[in-house]
Amino acid sequence: MGGTKIAAGMVSAEGKLLAEVRHPTPHSPKRLIEAIAEAIAEVRDGHEVGGVCLAVPGNILATENRVIFSPNLHAIEGIELKEALEPKIGLPLTVENDANAAAWGEFRFGAGSGVNHLVFITLGTGIGGGVITHGVLMRGAQGAGGELGHTTIQATGPRCACGNHGCLEALASGTAIRRRAREVAIERPGSALDSLASTREILGEDVTRLAEEGDGAALSVLREAGVWLGIGLAGFVNVFNPEVVAIGGGVVEAGELILDPARREIMLRARSPSRDLAEIRMATLGAKSGVLGAAALARDPGSGEYVLGDP
Amino acid sequence: MGGTKIAAGMVSAEGKLLAEVRHPTPHSPKRLIEAIAEAIAEVRDGHEVGGVCLAVPGNILATENRVIFSPNLHAIEGIELKEALEPKIGLPLTVENDANAAAWGEFRFGAGSGVNHLVFITLGTGIGGGVITHGVLMRGAQGAGGELGHTTIQATGPRCACGNHGCLEALASGTAIRRRAREVAIERPGSALDSLASTREILGEDVTRLAEEGDGAALSVLREAGVWLGIGLAGFVNVFNPEVVAIGGGVVEAGELILDPARREIMLRARSPSRDLAEIRMATLGAKSGVLGAAALARDPGSGEYVLGDP
Repeated sequence: MGGTKIAAGMVSAEGKLLAEVRHPTPHSPKRLIEAIAEAIAEVRDGHEVGGVCLAVPGNILATENRVIFSPNLHAIEGIELKEALEPKIGLPLTVENDANAAAWGEFRFGAGSGVNHLVFITLGTGIGGGVITHGVLMRGAQGAGGELGHTTIQATGPRCACGNHGCLEALASGTAIRRRAREVAIERPGSALDSLASTREILGEDVTRLAEEGDGAALSVLREAGVWLGIGLAGFVNVFNPEVVAIGGGVVEAGELILDPARREIMLRARSPSRDLAEIRMATLGAKSGVLGAAALARDPGSGEYVLGDP
Repeated sequence: MGGTKIAAGMVSAEGKLLAEVRHPTPHSPKRLIEAIAEAIAEVRDGHEVGGVCLAVPGNILATENRVIFSPNLHAIEGIELKEALEPKIGLPLTVENDANAAAWGEFRFGAGSGVNHLVFITLGTGIGGGVITHGVLMRGAQGAGGELGHTTIQATGPRCACGNHGCLEALASGTAIRRRAREVAIERPGSALDSLASTREILGEDVTRLAEEGDGAALSVLREAGVWLGIGLAGFVNVFNPEVVAIGGGVVEAGELILDPARREIMLRARSPSRDLAEIRMATLGAKSGVLGAAALARDPGSGEYVLGDP
């Protein structure tokens, strides 16, 4: 589920996407529920399906299968999704936060397959996250766990969309990159970034393109975002001692221009042995991580490969 | 194990401390191993014992039963503890970080008994932490997980003992409180804090006592530490969605003078539903949390009450 479209997929036990449909998201609660049920029926198309997991944006209360707050999809807030949808679709339904579902997708089929401890972070307009620890999807007591983007890393920093100051999201998201690009364009007159900013609004991909072309101003914007990302990740590396940190979302188009400074910062700020183990990788499933992860969670409640006593 | 003393306890399955001995810590590797073996023999005193867990300060590599870095107990660094001790004691031995052991103690027998999701933080000279998520002790891939004190919360903040800037430990530990007390004493001439600081070095308990007597300068030092603590805890509440956050360590002597501003900051910075659920409590086992937790871990590898699929 997203603010602009609904994607429904039918997925095999091995993580193969057998069918997929996409529809625009209606923004009234009643039409939204109908559209979800229709997308499921359409993708299912008579095949035998065991269950459905709905990956939803925003803060969820998984214990009640409800979304409490969804800034881009207010229509879904408060609906008892299990009660509303199960009678329509005739299948068991669970609800998961979209970033947690994507983390589970990367854990089962992508950048984290083969490990037991994965931190997944998605850098887009906002920053989402999901954590697998000892092979278990870390949902927390209510299913609201794994909210990595609103960790404060600079308490006196810029205001975040969530209302706080200095969240990781306020410093390293696509939104933060665009904000800094506007500021740096003014600070560095004559740069390619400045020239472009004087003609139109700067997008994230502009910053990446100009940086790849060697513009110092654009490079510094991405380096700075990478340093902030590294500061946040260093804390997560210390806290979770993961084998892999997988980075997804649109911002990873900038690749090493962001990941290289992030890795350096992790080596400066995180501790041994955690910093030496953690491999900072790009996520590999792209936009499919959510649908593959949700499907795997419909089958497997998120307990993974956990072996008692490991390590 | 601590930098000044070794405490050995014999503990029943129900968490009853049946016997305890304490000895000064030797600081040569050979004498240290002998002293640990002697303390175990002494507390055991002929009783049938199933196993031993050594709770050690510093960064551990649990997968190899080794301590990598221990600022207050360098003698223990690098020793293969299992190989060195098992032949001497004739019992299976495991190694755990001391804060993780204390977290497990509070989870099994203290402030976190009855919940499945606990964040434990110990505020002393430094800040240690341990997390239980879905009933599992979150050790991470190498047993180095749960290192909460070195999360950056103000990247441009004061230097930490670990070498970084703006760690939670650099802003909310006993060491941070003493540093700020010296600074605030100068900023507020005529305060009781200033009067005392002109006669001798300020200790943490001085700040608490003066604050309890109503000195505005001392109150502001504790309030500020409480705000920083709350900023760090807000991130952990978002990330772990815990039922309980238990605070232990010497600094909690200051009680609500620190916890009240911390709670307010959590309500400002953490998100619903996590912030509404998390109860910020004092730890209840005091200095016994480590020995009780370690003993429980010798018996139970830390898998707790986890039920697959919960929630």
